Amino acid sequence: MTDTVVASASREVVIGFDRPFVVIGERINPTGRKVLAREMKAGDYHRVVADAVSQVEAGAHMLDVNAGIPLADEPAILAEAVRLVQSVSDVPLSIDSSIVAALESGLAVYDGKPLVNSVTGEEDRLESVLPLVARHGAAVVAISNDETGISEDPNVRFEVARKIVERAQDHGIPTSDVVVDPLVMPIGAINSAGRQVMHLISRLREELKVNTTCGASNVSFGLPNRNGINSAFLTMAIGAGMTSAITNPLHGEVMQAVLGADVMMGNDPDCMRWIAKYREPRASGGARGNRRDRPRRRRRG
Amino acid sequence: MTDTVVASASREVVIGFDRPFVVIGERINPTGRKVLAREMKAGDYHRVVADAVSQVEAGAHMLDVNAGIPLADEPAILAEAVRLVQSVSDVPLSIDSSIVAALESGLAVYDGKPLVNSVTGEEDRLESVLPLVARHGAAVVAISNDETGISEDPNVRFEVARKIVERAQDHGIPTSDVVVDPLVMPIGAINSAGRQVMHLISRLREELKVNTTCGASNVSFGLPNRNGINSAFLTMAIGAGMTSAITNPLHGEVMQAVLGADVMMGNDPDCMRWIAKYREPRASGGARGNRRDRPRRRRRG
Repeated sequence: MTDTVVASASREVVIGFDRPFVVIGERINPTGRKVLAREMKAGDYHRVVADAVSQVEAGAHMLDVNAGIPLADEPAILAEAVRLVQSVSDVPLSIDSSIVAALESGLAVYDGKPLVNSVTGEEDRLESVLPLVARHGAAVVAISNDETGISEDPNVRFEVARKIVERAQDHGIPTSDVVVDPLVMPIGAINSAGRQVMHLISRLREELKVNTTCGASNVSFGLPNRNGINSAFLTMAIGAGMTSAITNPLHGEVMQAVLGADVMMGNDPDCMRWIAKYREPRASGGARGNRRDRPRRRRRG
Repeated sequence: MTDTVVASASREVVIGFDRPFVVIGERINPTGRKVLAREMKAGDYHRVVADAVSQVEAGAHMLDVNAGIPLADEPAILAEAVRLVQSVSDVPLSIDSSIVAALESGLAVYDGKPLVNSVTGEEDRLESVLPLVARHGAAVVAISNDETGISEDPNVRFEVARKIVERAQDHGIPTSDVVVDPLVMPIGAINSAGRQVMHLISRLREELKVNTTCGASNVSFGLPNRNGINSAFLTMAIGAGMTSAITNPLHGEVMQAVLGADVMMGNDPDCMRWIAKYREPRASGGARGNRRDRPRRRRRG
């Protein structure tokens, strides 16, 4: 049982074993969104605010905020985005940058206990990001690659994760505040990527006893019907023990996969969240007890 | 690695570890289908034939054939249904009855190696069904309940399955010809049913080394959006090692879950089945290489 507690000024969210899966909205990220990048660079944050509101409405439990725009003042833009998103939503944030100064400025304006996204197993990252995380009492996403890149061998990725967890401890960061991203490869290119990552998720949980997260959309890169593959991945990964993901809550199919997986794992008591979301209107004959809803007696006919 | 080979007169299908999941179409079953029951009883099989064709078109790899109609001549009706279904499709059949005489008459007209559905751990069933299965060289579905009913304790269900496998061996039926149904409880009533059955599926595979199947729709009994729950169940169960299911291939969402799970398990080489099914038409801008299909550089922005 490992709980990673993150918080906004007014709300706590727990990423944890045997708890409902935590969806971290991925939309506030200018990478690959030219219009958003141009707007943010020009100081126009209306789309950032709209994306915050719509993702929370769609069921995101946390929001990732990234301001990675080439040749822009990322620390200033990230701080402004974090400030604004906090003003329009009360979910905890994941402050996302590969630039330490940007993480620092985002943390400076954050009220609560955020997730810092991210640290890797690279020596310079460990020594620059972990002290920052410790100083702010934050939680951190640990990505299981290092100076040698991303290993295709899941055992190597596991050892990188272990190293980050140990180094975090050296900095006074408890293991429960490290959320490991096992790195999901595109399954269209590497057919064994699914099995590998399921095994890795399960080892991270059983052996390192850490919570896990990932960018859940990369798995379907290059394939048609990406939401179908993303849904299959999320459902199976939750079955293997994954406890959060950075993904797009605006895709109904993906959110359904998460809610269905919560039911399946016994993390939706009395299926109340599922029923609230999918209950059929009474007017159309009643959601309960109609005849087609009966189980079919297959065995004793 | 356990392979259960079943066959029609002209086609083999293998239910096996590390193979594509086998969908057994459930539709040819008069239980809960009053019109079909009335027709079959009156000797009208046009709907049976239509259901056979449509399920195979929708992707079923096998078809279950059940003729359980109260106060009807089930042996005669089942034999006729089996005969007709064989005449319009070439997939192997699952001959489904709780009446031994009906299984016998269905087996008598079957050309190939069918799945006999089913035997339980009840003494009289073991001693009546297993000799029949052995005599016909068939494979058999073993349902993990016995005289005491269906235990809510998955360990008891595991032991019942073990008993059936051992008794089958006594009759000369190899373990590879026993496909265990771990019994899936409605998760709306028993919130822990999902975790329990996943654990049981995994034990059946690792310890008993048997293939598994189940009626995949019972899990969602009483809940809204049943296909959503059924899809979550199938995906997670395939991740846990389940190798076949008796379900409705006419539900696109359920078939998508199965195909997506096959991709995720590495059992759809180069994702060719997924791509063939979901490829976007070229006319609409090309399925490959369009910009929105690029992975988002989240980490190094």
